[in-house]
Amino acid sequence: MANFDLTRELAQASGGKIILLVMDGLGGLPLTPDGLTELESAHTPNLDALAKTGSLGLSIPVARGIAPGSGPGHLGLFGYDPIEYQIGRGVLEATGIGLHVNPGDVAVRGNFCTVDAAGNITDRRAGRIPTEEGAKRVELLKQIQLPGVETIVEAVQDYRFALMLRGPGLDGSIADTDPQATGVPTLPARAERPEAEYTAGLINQWLAEARKILTGHEPANMVTLRGFAMDPALPKFKDVYKLKAACVAVYPMYKGVARLVGMDILDVGGHGTPEDEFNRVAAAWKDYDFFFIHIKYTDSRGEDGKFEEKAKVIESVDAALPILLGLNPDVLVVTGDHSTPAKYKAHSWHPVPTLLHAPQTAMPDRAQAFGERECIMGALGQFPAAELMMLALAHANRLVKFGA
Amino acid sequence: MANFDLTRELAQASGGKIILLVMDGLGGLPLTPDGLTELESAHTPNLDALAKTGSLGLSIPVARGIAPGSGPGHLGLFGYDPIEYQIGRGVLEATGIGLHVNPGDVAVRGNFCTVDAAGNITDRRAGRIPTEEGAKRVELLKQIQLPGVETIVEAVQDYRFALMLRGPGLDGSIADTDPQATGVPTLPARAERPEAEYTAGLINQWLAEARKILTGHEPANMVTLRGFAMDPALPKFKDVYKLKAACVAVYPMYKGVARLVGMDILDVGGHGTPEDEFNRVAAAWKDYDFFFIHIKYTDSRGEDGKFEEKAKVIESVDAALPILLGLNPDVLVVTGDHSTPAKYKAHSWHPVPTLLHAPQTAMPDRAQAFGERECIMGALGQFPAAELMMLALAHANRLVKFGA
Repeated sequence: MANFDLTRELAQASGGKIILLVMDGLGGLPLTPDGLTELESAHTPNLDALAKTGSLGLSIPVARGIAPGSGPGHLGLFGYDPIEYQIGRGVLEATGIGLHVNPGDVAVRGNFCTVDAAGNITDRRAGRIPTEEGAKRVELLKQIQLPGVETIVEAVQDYRFALMLRGPGLDGSIADTDPQATGVPTLPARAERPEAEYTAGLINQWLAEARKILTGHEPANMVTLRGFAMDPALPKFKDVYKLKAACVAVYPMYKGVARLVGMDILDVGGHGTPEDEFNRVAAAWKDYDFFFIHIKYTDSRGEDGKFEEKAKVIESVDAALPILLGLNPDVLVVTGDHSTPAKYKAHSWHPVPTLLHAPQTAMPDRAQAFGERECIMGALGQFPAAELMMLALAHANRLVKFGA
Repeated sequence: MANFDLTRELAQASGGKIILLVMDGLGGLPLTPDGLTELESAHTPNLDALAKTGSLGLSIPVARGIAPGSGPGHLGLFGYDPIEYQIGRGVLEATGIGLHVNPGDVAVRGNFCTVDAAGNITDRRAGRIPTEEGAKRVELLKQIQLPGVETIVEAVQDYRFALMLRGPGLDGSIADTDPQATGVPTLPARAERPEAEYTAGLINQWLAEARKILTGHEPANMVTLRGFAMDPALPKFKDVYKLKAACVAVYPMYKGVARLVGMDILDVGGHGTPEDEFNRVAAAWKDYDFFFIHIKYTDSRGEDGKFEEKAKVIESVDAALPILLGLNPDVLVVTGDHSTPAKYKAHSWHPVPTLLHAPQTAMPDRAQAFGERECIMGALGQFPAAELMMLALAHANRLVKFGA
């Protein structure tokens, strides 16, 4: 439901409070055909009790067969058609290390590379230098000044860094400078439309300086830039849903995506455990209509292939759940942004177990526990993730009737 | 499935007979998480027998989370995407009291209001005068004559009335005259495009006369007009589906929507009971390919919060069902235009229980009774209401194969 015209028409500013609890990569697979999934094998008495009285279903993050990254996975959950609304790679990279990408900024991913005396690339990843080597060179790059704009450079991981330009008149329609080949020089920044000529000129000045500064710092003696992007100007929660929304997350990437849709970001104290996150929600409960809570380690353990440890992360979420339930949310949705089966060790396309707890209006289905196979038989059926927000708003009594 | 190009290409004029039996607001909710819904608790041996041999499913009226009014709810069931095809409020209001809105007519909702000596609104609803007081003033308004067009005014309820202009050259692109505030004058009718200037001028003449006529008839001494609209020019059943279709309904609103899609309206004799309605279908059985039957009181009792009485309405439909079954319809669909859980006392967004009886072609699923929870597991799954007509046509052998 990316039909935000209709959403704007029907959404009202009053109504109940909504919690969207996202366990990253929640969905899983049994290790053997007769086995249980991570979620099914986890001991989750609180979630199972909610499953008995609420509605279950399966969320399709983008489309059948598509394994989404974190950006589209979350945009879907936030109600944005992830194919229509895309966050450029430069913005996601910057956001992922905690940079704030503001309207007008141009952000891009950088790779250190190795060039020979003639300027031809001999290694597109600079021998995969470790993060600390990349960080040293980023310190050098921070010295580069450009006229009329601020430059922001931060190390990411290994040979990667993020670059942002901030100032008036910038435009991100610029082609990659990575030729995707060795034996050839890096490409100059080239504007893909006239409005970006000025920005491309600045980038080329920056690249010339970078080349000078990095000379002698082999193997990382040059850079390529990929995925120039700007703030995607996503419709904001306040505008589209009339929701005052907050994000409680530990990792910068998710805070960044939440910020792009207009959520306030609440800092999580303690050790960033589920309990810490839920207590942060409780502390801000009266100030917001909507809370997005992000749990990272379900995905991490899935990517590591650690079935038991992923189940334990789910159990730790379940154990802390009474903190949220004690707030008596009108709507609590528990889901994931995609599946990350430990068996698959990567984001997958499998639809994601979803639980809708809404004491007044949820249809209790026959599910007795929160798990993939119970969700198949749930009252919500299988649905595009981008339709979940409308369901949550409806159950929070935040949508008026459509038509007479 | 609003892809009427494809529908027109595949629909053929021969085939079986279809009954679409709509219990308004059919879907419900259990009063407690472990309870039954209205439909589940109703004693419905005939519907349950059909459920055993037919296919069940859940119809999504407009989109997930959206509670539809009667207009969009029925347009969906008739196969029209309710977001793409909308019936303006003026037309729905006129239709709802039995006025025929013909192509070229302009219809609008009227409210009586109170204005002070300076013409400023002091009460936008004229003290909510009762219907008989509104009707008296409507008799006065009927005296107003306009050059070159016919004016039709009819009382609706309380302080509301319907106004229609009929004649050549009219255009409904006119802004509301209700300023949505007190302490300010009513607005003049303003054309939203040049083609509507002529109509706006006529409306302003009518408003000036109304002001004169109503002076002294406080508290209802002026009117505002909202929701100017024209016949939505919906594709007709005959054209799109090649169906000769009839409507059997008691309430004017549903007859009106049926008329807008090209159905003949059959008058129901007797007391307008389900039995009376079904007998009317039997009397016209040989004359039509398609019958839309509308049962009103499931919705009314739901809106009143009367769980048991809603269940009793369903039981009365079930008891009369042998009349329809005796006609041996090739396809009988039993569904609702939306849910109206007695617990919720309003139209809701919950998907609607749907039963497809088609003795030759329906896939018998494992459902043993007609009810929400059985429908979750039904062969039809969850589907947009607007796709139901294509299913009905297919089971009536009225669609040819697509492609070679």
